[in-house]
Amino acid sequence: MLDVYAFATPNSIKVPIALEELGLNYNLRGVNVRKGEQKAPDFVALNPNAKVPVLVDGDLVLTESAAILVYLAEKTGHLLPASGEGRAQVFEQLFFHASGLGPAFGQSGFFQRSAAEPQPIAIERFSGEAKRTVGVLDGVLAQRQFVAGADFTIADIAHFGWLWRREFAMVDLDNAPNIARWYAAVEARPAVQRAIARISTLVPAA
Amino acid sequence: MLDVYAFATPNSIKVPIALEELGLNYNLRGVNVRKGEQKAPDFVALNPNAKVPVLVDGDLVLTESAAILVYLAEKTGHLLPASGEGRAQVFEQLFFHASGLGPAFGQSGFFQRSAAEPQPIAIERFSGEAKRTVGVLDGVLAQRQFVAGADFTIADIAHFGWLWRREFAMVDLDNAPNIARWYAAVEARPAVQRAIARISTLVPAA
Repeated sequence: MLDVYAFATPNSIKVPIALEELGLNYNLRGVNVRKGEQKAPDFVALNPNAKVPVLVDGDLVLTESAAILVYLAEKTGHLLPASGEGRAQVFEQLFFHASGLGPAFGQSGFFQRSAAEPQPIAIERFSGEAKRTVGVLDGVLAQRQFVAGADFTIADIAHFGWLWRREFAMVDLDNAPNIARWYAAVEARPAVQRAIARISTLVPAA
Repeated sequence: MLDVYAFATPNSIKVPIALEELGLNYNLRGVNVRKGEQKAPDFVALNPNAKVPVLVDGDLVLTESAAILVYLAEKTGHLLPASGEGRAQVFEQLFFHASGLGPAFGQSGFFQRSAAEPQPIAIERFSGEAKRTVGVLDGVLAQRQFVAGADFTIADIAHFGWLWRREFAMVDLDNAPNIARWYAAVEARPAVQRAIARISTLVPAA
């Protein structure tokens, strides 16, 4: 049995989505990041980087949501082309999300919502970068059904994470019709619905 | 023949290092980011994300430095274990660099060196995150010869990029003896020396 340490966060949601898409059973173990549980000693022993999600598969303890996606895809032989241009484009999109769109969304939300004092240059920098990366992804989806080609892959799951939480980042899709079309299609997948329902149970009622 | 569009940047250097390690021939095509050439229309046609590096291999145009590393490793069968825990740990480190250490170093340098006005919360946030990620990586290297295990892999090449440019990020290794040991070993590799020498020719004399 696989164990997934997670919360209802942009990066965590990717793992249950992949597991539901792949039909794998898993224990979902909540780590309430609103209470700082990811910094507790027993969790840091599991992941010294103090972040969710973490996958435990027997002796393997694996961190970094996109690395978990690659691992699960290769374990099962699904959601990642075995070779060729399509495979390269999945990795291109995984790293564009990890290094570009994801950090931009996260910092855009932090500086607009959470910083103790306004930091105007930081707000402009990150809200601008969030909009810019949305534009780049919208251009990709103007030419492709899914983010890395004609088929749904782990790269779609990766991008879904922050798009699902775009309200925190203060990003909308008003000028991104291709992302809006893609988002609706991904969100409607039964496996995605099941993953969202299951991870939402980790959040205590207000 | 492979074409590499690059400049002497933390992300660009990874590609020539991999190519030199793998013994592949390539044309190195300079894109002077200090002059904004990465935003010129002909370059944006190649990479709509307007960033170096870009690899062109026949019909394949591939962006994102770490995706290029994965592509080259799989094309040649070197620098990336074919399966098992070692392979998963390479991807874990690639994504830790792409989403964690790399962005922290980049923003730490920007807010301490390049921002038009001081943004104290941003400076504290990113210089703190750069130090924190250095600590996490130092902990990894306390237990492993290379970042993903006993062997040199593309994950070492990825981390080398920003460690090579740590001065911009205002990061030092005074409290990171394991990274210092690893950095010296990687920097001394003949292929790394050749890549640095070659990419340095792209920078015009002051």
